[in-house]
Amino acid sequence: MSAPAQDPVEEVTQKIEELFFDDEGKPITKKAFKKLQKDKEKADRKAATAAKIAAEKAERDATNVDYSVDRYGKLPMNQSQTRTDTKYEDINTINASRAGETVTVRVRVQTSRATGGKMCFFVFRQNVSTIQGIITVDESTISKQMVKYCVGISPESIVLVQGKIVKPVEEVKSCTVTCAEIAIEKIHVVSEVNARLAFSLDDASRPESAYEEDPQLARVNLDTRLNNRVLDLRTTTNHAIFRMQSAVCLLFREFLTERDFMEIHTPKLISAASEGGSNVFKVNYFKTNAFLAQSPQLYKQMCIAADFGKVFEIAPVFRAEDSNTHRHMTEFMGLDMEMAFNEHYHEVLEVLEDLIVFLLTNLKSRFSNEIEIIKKQYEFEDFEFLPKTLRLHFSEGVKMLREAGVEVGDFDDLSTANEKFLGKLVKEKYHTDFYVLDKFPLAIRPFYTMPDPANPGYSNSYDFFLRGEEILSGAQRIHDADFLTERAKVHEVDLSTIQPYIDAFKIGAPPHAGGGFGLERIVMLFLGLGNIRRSSLFPRDPKRLEP
Amino acid sequence: MSAPAQDPVEEVTQKIEELFFDDEGKPITKKAFKKLQKDKEKADRKAATAAKIAAEKAERDATNVDYSVDRYGKLPMNQSQTRTDTKYEDINTINASRAGETVTVRVRVQTSRATGGKMCFFVFRQNVSTIQGIITVDESTISKQMVKYCVGISPESIVLVQGKIVKPVEEVKSCTVTCAEIAIEKIHVVSEVNARLAFSLDDASRPESAYEEDPQLARVNLDTRLNNRVLDLRTTTNHAIFRMQSAVCLLFREFLTERDFMEIHTPKLISAASEGGSNVFKVNYFKTNAFLAQSPQLYKQMCIAADFGKVFEIAPVFRAEDSNTHRHMTEFMGLDMEMAFNEHYHEVLEVLEDLIVFLLTNLKSRFSNEIEIIKKQYEFEDFEFLPKTLRLHFSEGVKMLREAGVEVGDFDDLSTANEKFLGKLVKEKYHTDFYVLDKFPLAIRPFYTMPDPANPGYSNSYDFFLRGEEILSGAQRIHDADFLTERAKVHEVDLSTIQPYIDAFKIGAPPHAGGGFGLERIVMLFLGLGNIRRSSLFPRDPKRLEP
Repeated sequence: MSAPAQDPVEEVTQKIEELFFDDEGKPITKKAFKKLQKDKEKADRKAATAAKIAAEKAERDATNVDYSVDRYGKLPMNQSQTRTDTKYEDINTINASRAGETVTVRVRVQTSRATGGKMCFFVFRQNVSTIQGIITVDESTISKQMVKYCVGISPESIVLVQGKIVKPVEEVKSCTVTCAEIAIEKIHVVSEVNARLAFSLDDASRPESAYEEDPQLARVNLDTRLNNRVLDLRTTTNHAIFRMQSAVCLLFREFLTERDFMEIHTPKLISAASEGGSNVFKVNYFKTNAFLAQSPQLYKQMCIAADFGKVFEIAPVFRAEDSNTHRHMTEFMGLDMEMAFNEHYHEVLEVLEDLIVFLLTNLKSRFSNEIEIIKKQYEFEDFEFLPKTLRLHFSEGVKMLREAGVEVGDFDDLSTANEKFLGKLVKEKYHTDFYVLDKFPLAIRPFYTMPDPANPGYSNSYDFFLRGEEILSGAQRIHDADFLTERAKVHEVDLSTIQPYIDAFKIGAPPHAGGGFGLERIVMLFLGLGNIRRSSLFPRDPKRLEP
Repeated sequence: MSAPAQDPVEEVTQKIEELFFDDEGKPITKKAFKKLQKDKEKADRKAATAAKIAAEKAERDATNVDYSVDRYGKLPMNQSQTRTDTKYEDINTINASRAGETVTVRVRVQTSRATGGKMCFFVFRQNVSTIQGIITVDESTISKQMVKYCVGISPESIVLVQGKIVKPVEEVKSCTVTCAEIAIEKIHVVSEVNARLAFSLDDASRPESAYEEDPQLARVNLDTRLNNRVLDLRTTTNHAIFRMQSAVCLLFREFLTERDFMEIHTPKLISAASEGGSNVFKVNYFKTNAFLAQSPQLYKQMCIAADFGKVFEIAPVFRAEDSNTHRHMTEFMGLDMEMAFNEHYHEVLEVLEDLIVFLLTNLKSRFSNEIEIIKKQYEFEDFEFLPKTLRLHFSEGVKMLREAGVEVGDFDDLSTANEKFLGKLVKEKYHTDFYVLDKFPLAIRPFYTMPDPANPGYSNSYDFFLRGEEILSGAQRIHDADFLTERAKVHEVDLSTIQPYIDAFKIGAPPHAGGGFGLERIVMLFLGLGNIRRSSLFPRDPKRLEP
């Protein structure tokens, strides 16, 4: 279409319109008008760019929405708000044959490791077992945000995980469950860690041999462990150690209950320092003093005088000894037994020997898994023992020591060094880590010990040794009140402190014998732990009362 | 033969001879001679009589020789001099079908009764069993001397008896072995009584009903019993009571071990009075002070924070309360358990309820003999309980009390009187001696108790009651360190005394709950003994530290 001929009025109007005005309608110069025009164009471009950016952001937001919000986060504190039918799995039941199943587990985060922002690997722990957990970003369920949250969960937090059992590409060697792992679908923190950990469980779980290979590795010393005992107790090694400790009591009772022994509970608060005054703790008892029992000795014997026949007790004993050694504590668990016999204290000694053989046999057979776990950290030689216990006369022990060049008197007590050395000699000669020394010298035993009627200077008493260290002391006791009084006087025991005990024998008591084991010593020696504090949950010594 | 005629010389001689002389040949008067002659005859008669008496005595002695000397007497003190193959019988194995067998038993002389100097009846005791023994003079084995010796053996002596099993003419109602007795062939004292007995076992064993029939009978009060506890413990009733006490621990462990609980041993010596200062015993600990744990509460929770999952402990607990009641002691046995749960503390409460049902069921079925023995002395009603435990909300208990006319506030603690009364109301309405009260008011529970999230003023805590008296207290515990700190402050607990405990929760702990039973209370209440001292071997209270 061609342009129409211009009307003169329109032409004038157009010219007026072409005059220059600013935005408020005031006439301006052409130059000013041009600048204004330029500014306008700039603003328009800016707006267009902003709009474009906004549009792009909107588009980005649309694809980046956190579609996992309900799948992760911290749960409110459990106050037993609800109860569902959810099944919480033991991770030990998880294996490759269950691949594809969705399970819920509550586990401790042992470690986590992020890879490339899109994946996170976990080692989850339950008691002595561990399993691998994996989470990977995907398009509709696992968001980047969720994986980022996972990476931020601190070790030792407790998490509730829902996921699918998956067969891993290759065996997961770093976990106890090797043939299956969990593809995480949901993860919520049940209990979080809000303190710096004194050490990592990896550092606390390392075997001695690792330090030989790499001396730079962080080492957690015993004091640090004990100061942070709750964290320390979480290692699989410690779980296994205390399963073993629990097992010793279980087997002790199993054996004795089977033989009609009766469990007793004797008082720990006593009126007088009845077994020698220096090693006893004094207690403020209302307006007077009491003392803490150093053993159930006198009371278990009183139960025998009361015709209980065969008794045992598992209870704490207290020793106010200022001994700071690897095998002394001020409080430990005593496994005590006492038994009336018919003719000879060897009737009782045989029960005690059978008890230890039963214990050792069953620890090995029923707790081999725990033993293997502990061995990984505290390497020790397998415990050797004979089906028929080796029983040596004390004088035979002395003879062996002398033949090996040790100067020792016939009636000397065994020093710790000689005790250990004799254990070594016995092991070499008889191939056993457990043996019994019978007929100790009378003078080095407590006042209530029955003298050997045939061999002056000796007594009807015995000690048991594991790996060359004493775990039990025992004897035939004097059951005759007059003779008991006589012997107490010889030992300069204050008779007034033991009157109820003496009185118990005035009304007739059968011949009897017994012994007391130290629980933590058995565990320490059987497992070669090297320090008794490692076999006590919260050890007590002259310098430690906490935690 | 006739007499020969007399020779005159002889006649004279005879006459001279007929003159009277005394014994020394001096002539005497006829009168004097006659007297002399009379005296002689008298002496002769006397001698003859003496000879006759001597002959008779010799004859008597010959028939009266003690042909039993080797069959009785006191044995030398047993020092394990010898060992034979003798079989020592349990008297419970003796019955009429074994009549004619010779057996050896070692028994306590409970009573003896002589009849006419030729017989003696014994009641022999072994633990909770008794059997009759009889000895009768005969011509070749049992001498009068032996029977006399038997009569002199004091009650409570221990004797070694060899004899023949005999079927008695009629049932021996006074003994537990009724269909057989022992005809004694040998009897030796093994251990004799050389003190006056404070009371006879017959007096100590009498049921309350006997005093109603005959108020003149000697009664042994509780203090006398406890002062002479060894003698007192010999009654069959006490043997049965402590068999039951032993059984409660056995069953407690059996149930929990079966459910994978682990036994723990926590320290009794602690560094601070962590559960409130007033009721705690102070101990001199080297150069500082320690305290005796009032419960394993904090430590068993720390084991949960260490991931032990399910734990139990049987150990003494110490309370420095100056309470002199029928149900308080300063030292008693705590049966404690603690358990992590997944969703709701009722998971734990159910385990505890099942535990008590298991305990009650098995006490009744496995220890019926003991229950019957105890019932004879301490008459009590059979224990009633429901297979599914009755669980009442605390407010429901308050409501029941109010409906029965008791004025009590919504959040008041239960007084001992109200506790018992509520037990009575529950028994009437629900026919059970065991029930649980759930949701105690928050304010009257310890600082670590978890509040009920739905009902302000209440908490996730519970008590168990047997025959209207509390045997267990328990709750969900606070597992969040910050909230625990907050609650401790509200309760004005000195935070410095519980730092290791608070710290345990800072490194993450699962939700958990638990409870603690008092062993002696369970035994006392189940058996209706009326005083807790009767269910403790050697009870301790503010006034008693001995024997």
